[in-house]
Amino acid sequence: MMSVTSPAEHDSFHTQHAPLGAFSSFTVGLVGSPGGFGHALRGPARQNVYVGYKSADSGPWRLLPFFTPPQSAEVAFTGEAAVVRPSNEYAAMSADDYERVLGWASDTWRTRDGRFGFSILSPFGETKDPARMNKREARAAFSPHVAAWIEFDNTAGSADAELMFGVGDSDRLFRPLQDEDAKLLGFACNRDFGYATMPGRGIEARQGFDVFTPRFLDHRGLLLIGGESALVFRVPAGKKKRFPLVLAFFQGGLVTSGIDAVYAYTRWFTDLEDVLRHGLAVRKERERVAAQRDRELARSGLSEDQRFLIAQATHSYFGNSQLLWGKNGPIWVVNEGEYRMMNTFDLAVDQMFFELRWFPWAVRNILDLFASRYVYRDRIKLVDGRTAPGGVSFTHDMGVMNNFTPPGRSSYECDGLTGCFSHMTMEQLLNWVLTAVTYGVSTGDAGWLRRRKDLLLACAESMRRRDDPKVARRDGILKHDSDRCGRDGAEITTYDSLDVSLGQARNNLYLAVKTLGAWILLQEAFARLGSREHARAAASTADVLAASIVARFDEEAQCFPAVFEHGNRSRIIPAVEGFAYPLFLDIVSATDREGRFGVLLERLERHLRTVMVRGVCLDDTSGAWKMSSTSTNTWFSKIALSQYVVRSLFADTLGAEARAADAVHALWQRRPGCGANAMCDQIHSDTGVSCGSRYYPRGVTAYLWLRESGVAGKR
Amino acid sequence: MMSVTSPAEHDSFHTQHAPLGAFSSFTVGLVGSPGGFGHALRGPARQNVYVGYKSADSGPWRLLPFFTPPQSAEVAFTGEAAVVRPSNEYAAMSADDYERVLGWASDTWRTRDGRFGFSILSPFGETKDPARMNKREARAAFSPHVAAWIEFDNTAGSADAELMFGVGDSDRLFRPLQDEDAKLLGFACNRDFGYATMPGRGIEARQGFDVFTPRFLDHRGLLLIGGESALVFRVPAGKKKRFPLVLAFFQGGLVTSGIDAVYAYTRWFTDLEDVLRHGLAVRKERERVAAQRDRELARSGLSEDQRFLIAQATHSYFGNSQLLWGKNGPIWVVNEGEYRMMNTFDLAVDQMFFELRWFPWAVRNILDLFASRYVYRDRIKLVDGRTAPGGVSFTHDMGVMNNFTPPGRSSYECDGLTGCFSHMTMEQLLNWVLTAVTYGVSTGDAGWLRRRKDLLLACAESMRRRDDPKVARRDGILKHDSDRCGRDGAEITTYDSLDVSLGQARNNLYLAVKTLGAWILLQEAFARLGSREHARAAASTADVLAASIVARFDEEAQCFPAVFEHGNRSRIIPAVEGFAYPLFLDIVSATDREGRFGVLLERLERHLRTVMVRGVCLDDTSGAWKMSSTSTNTWFSKIALSQYVVRSLFADTLGAEARAADAVHALWQRRPGCGANAMCDQIHSDTGVSCGSRYYPRGVTAYLWLRESGVAGKR
Repeated sequence: MMSVTSPAEHDSFHTQHAPLGAFSSFTVGLVGSPGGFGHALRGPARQNVYVGYKSADSGPWRLLPFFTPPQSAEVAFTGEAAVVRPSNEYAAMSADDYERVLGWASDTWRTRDGRFGFSILSPFGETKDPARMNKREARAAFSPHVAAWIEFDNTAGSADAELMFGVGDSDRLFRPLQDEDAKLLGFACNRDFGYATMPGRGIEARQGFDVFTPRFLDHRGLLLIGGESALVFRVPAGKKKRFPLVLAFFQGGLVTSGIDAVYAYTRWFTDLEDVLRHGLAVRKERERVAAQRDRELARSGLSEDQRFLIAQATHSYFGNSQLLWGKNGPIWVVNEGEYRMMNTFDLAVDQMFFELRWFPWAVRNILDLFASRYVYRDRIKLVDGRTAPGGVSFTHDMGVMNNFTPPGRSSYECDGLTGCFSHMTMEQLLNWVLTAVTYGVSTGDAGWLRRRKDLLLACAESMRRRDDPKVARRDGILKHDSDRCGRDGAEITTYDSLDVSLGQARNNLYLAVKTLGAWILLQEAFARLGSREHARAAASTADVLAASIVARFDEEAQCFPAVFEHGNRSRIIPAVEGFAYPLFLDIVSATDREGRFGVLLERLERHLRTVMVRGVCLDDTSGAWKMSSTSTNTWFSKIALSQYVVRSLFADTLGAEARAADAVHALWQRRPGCGANAMCDQIHSDTGVSCGSRYYPRGVTAYLWLRESGVAGKR
Repeated sequence: MMSVTSPAEHDSFHTQHAPLGAFSSFTVGLVGSPGGFGHALRGPARQNVYVGYKSADSGPWRLLPFFTPPQSAEVAFTGEAAVVRPSNEYAAMSADDYERVLGWASDTWRTRDGRFGFSILSPFGETKDPARMNKREARAAFSPHVAAWIEFDNTAGSADAELMFGVGDSDRLFRPLQDEDAKLLGFACNRDFGYATMPGRGIEARQGFDVFTPRFLDHRGLLLIGGESALVFRVPAGKKKRFPLVLAFFQGGLVTSGIDAVYAYTRWFTDLEDVLRHGLAVRKERERVAAQRDRELARSGLSEDQRFLIAQATHSYFGNSQLLWGKNGPIWVVNEGEYRMMNTFDLAVDQMFFELRWFPWAVRNILDLFASRYVYRDRIKLVDGRTAPGGVSFTHDMGVMNNFTPPGRSSYECDGLTGCFSHMTMEQLLNWVLTAVTYGVSTGDAGWLRRRKDLLLACAESMRRRDDPKVARRDGILKHDSDRCGRDGAEITTYDSLDVSLGQARNNLYLAVKTLGAWILLQEAFARLGSREHARAAASTADVLAASIVARFDEEAQCFPAVFEHGNRSRIIPAVEGFAYPLFLDIVSATDREGRFGVLLERLERHLRTVMVRGVCLDDTSGAWKMSSTSTNTWFSKIALSQYVVRSLFADTLGAEARAADAVHALWQRRPGCGANAMCDQIHSDTGVSCGSRYYPRGVTAYLWLRESGVAGKR
């Protein structure tokens, strides 16, 4: 039922266990490391998490390795010079003691003897537009909690055993929930986060400077000034018991600037206690949904490594998801991992494949806010230093860290640059087109597509003008930078931190093929809208562009240069990225090897044969896929996207090494080099250590792999 | 005008610059250390603060030492392996370069050449009951901001100079205020805190990975993803310029549990921008008030060390102050420093002297909440293991870290203990009596005193029963512990972390004299209420108690033992603490050396002569006052309280060493051993290093010193 059994003796990675839309995670998993409840953080929280058991034969408490040796806060009160000695009442389990299984919607640790188990569930499913939900539906869909359970099989035991779930926070304190609500046993940090189970016989709440040997107990056996809290469950001799847990988040009031908004869940839940009670009430249903997702991934036909990567990426995606509510209704945001930029468009375009399957309204919501607030019109720079009218485009993002930027402006784009932090005018223009048409066509939301026809036409015109203002000189390839870049600046692509092979927008192979993808989709959209003339025009531009790209093929090198100027010799995999969209929409005419783009597809196949070898776009040291032959910075989400295209359209180009690389990519995420920050995207292809984009949502693009094998996830 | 000029070459201490009632501080001052904006923290925040100047002759930016070398976040974006090298564009000033002057309501740094100056103002004054304020008054009194200014004298300069005020936060980002409000130039972290000045010529907002050499600039010269922000002010050659700054805090929504409450200021201010605009508008008035407070302290006749201690303590008091608003109106809370316990009663009783001068309603507010929610009735333990009815008392505190505990329960008190964390039933009973009568008598609020008469009578009865349930056996001294302590527990006093000399409540010298103080005040209160019978009864108990204490005098040792049992040989200064209350209320009959307590006062004088010597209650190493001869843990706030009593009533007992100790106590707070956490209370008397009670409000008890010399502060 679980999708992945990984080699536990080496595994050490954090996973973000997160509800939908709360920008919150309960993060644990990295061996010997704290984690816990975090809201809007750039990485894991720093709470010790105590999960384990104590039985007749266990000696001290045996705990999963989710903590560092705790520093008791007692000394600050007693003024004693001596540091309180570490407890000898507990021991962390070693990798030999347990097995961890990460599913699509679950994460389970079991001791190898099978007696002890702990699991965190973050089920997800098809979710309809929150603007059209009633309160009951909304509570079911957007409760800001994750479910968990802890169990012990004491059927062979002759003495009672105990289970513990606890949290220690050095900066904050816990309050016992029973003070406010007799139906809840557990603890919360202020009104912000907490955990609970149902009160019952043999379940004890503990709190103190030390939850293993609490020395100071108030009238009900707690110590509110303690800083560590736990639930302890008794499992009688001869019994097997499983106890439910709810881990919840709540952030009330206005949380944003620029656009004033609250968390959507605050419309449907009054407070943290409400969420905890709800979580306990719906736990069976949540377990059912989690099991269903786990099953779907397990039966997908994908390899164990692929299933692990999808599961881990999905968890980090949800940790970055955020459903806000402003005066005009719901606002969907995906935050950009450690950078926390909001709805970065070059992430949105990749994440839409996953979102369209489960909550397509989220894609439309992003598109609409880009169209209303983050659209702009620019001029483009000519070679003679003058400028000409450019056209419509969209910002790189909508703000950063809950601060929405002013209309037409991103948090990222700067002037006068040619590398990182420059403008991405063409990139984001293409991203709006690709996302909009993919949304409209794949969901069948013809009404929306019709309402956006004028904007699509304006986008088409903008794309053409950036090729060249003079019609006669157009060949389909971007050749003019936005004047937003300033006199000395130049546009970049989403591959901002790679070398020039992928960074520069003008005359860029990746962007040219992506532009082709956009024209193919525009043709499809206009055709569906009954605008034959515009469809024909798009088709014609696509044909010209395809021919222009073909003409850039280097017969001698048997591949395309990454940039069509200055004798660039870089080799890149994302040459094929632009075909992901027609492929996803099953526009067969565009992907047919005997069809209108047959020549280009043939050249791309030869390109791939040339580059998908060790030392070019397979890393010399590790064998991993490299986006560019001339950079050791490679991005997992983009590997996943390319794999979808390459395995679907150019499967024959992959040798054994290229096919085996999934194991390398998975191993990276399983090791602390990436795993210390849950899913990571930018990775050194030689060492497997992350160099940016940590705690990152975009890996969920790997969801596309499920389309390769035609499984449950396929729509 | 400034009250203190301290030896800058050694000074290194944080000061909490805080508005009234916001539980927030802008903390800076410790050399080479971050600080900045903090809300509800247990110690200083960890933001780099950049304050300094750059002139033609300065070379790089010359900055006050409020930061550690910043780590640029740029590398996380660019994925480059190389760590971005520290800037050579700035240098921290050394202690030789500047002078720091801490006033009662200001903190000013000036370069020794007099050109550069920076000052943070936290003015305070007489504040009336917020429940009776109109909005205009409330905005004036409770605006959650502190004022500041920065200046440079460039009159002799031939080139423009620049000034900088900036903040860097590694975990959060800033948003430029100009996005929302053209009248503000500055930055904010979300909706929570920020700083601003008025836009004007020559004032620039900066933001980036590095505010000294920002490499990436957006359309208006900022970089929102940067993490560092600053205002840069130009001072033209030939000019001297001072620029105002406002540092503001805002925490919206419900912030507490147990009792649901918001910050009171959210009733009168809409958001952070509202506070910032208000702060700029009222800056002249705020400067005037700060200057007036500074002047009052400067002209108090107190020594430089005493003035420094009062100023530093007052700043930390305000940093812990919190005005909430619940469904029944205002709730005044003083948080307990690093422990963040709320309205800890044994702090409240000491802080009231300051509060009664400036905002006496705060004292009444605390008393009323203790009387309505944190009152309880117990039984007391008898020697034979049985219990008898005890009476009324009050909890140690009202909760911790914004979590109000349930009625009748504190966050601190545990069962079955004989030391730290045990119950303080008698201590807090006395504290309610002493605080209530001191409030009622000193303010003349006879109506309140009348309404509380029944409770005062219940307190008197409770005090008597704890002496002994049998009237005939009473001698006035506490001899029975509350049954809340459990079978094996015993009550403690506020001196919880000292040795048994002050920790045990039964037969305790400190508590006995404090009990006498309470009876003296009860007599006064009942007399004022026209209850002659109760006044007479209180007087009679006081006389019996005084005689009982006198009988404990050890003629051989020429002092009192700290505990009247088990042959205790500890010597303590707080033997005289109980006389602080009649002294404060000018109840001359009680403090008259020829009066009814003349014999006791004479014994206490001999006690002091014996203990106020090196090696007994003056520390052998440092010469500092020690609360107990047998503990090196001494508490500044209690030193201050004793000093008030000793210097007022027993001045002749102090030799040169005892009088000189203020210099030692001041030096402690000026050095990182305490100063790393602003005002500290529990201090190792030999080393001067804090061992608890950091970032602490109670030092404000030193305000009593102003009563010794009859100055402006005296009411």
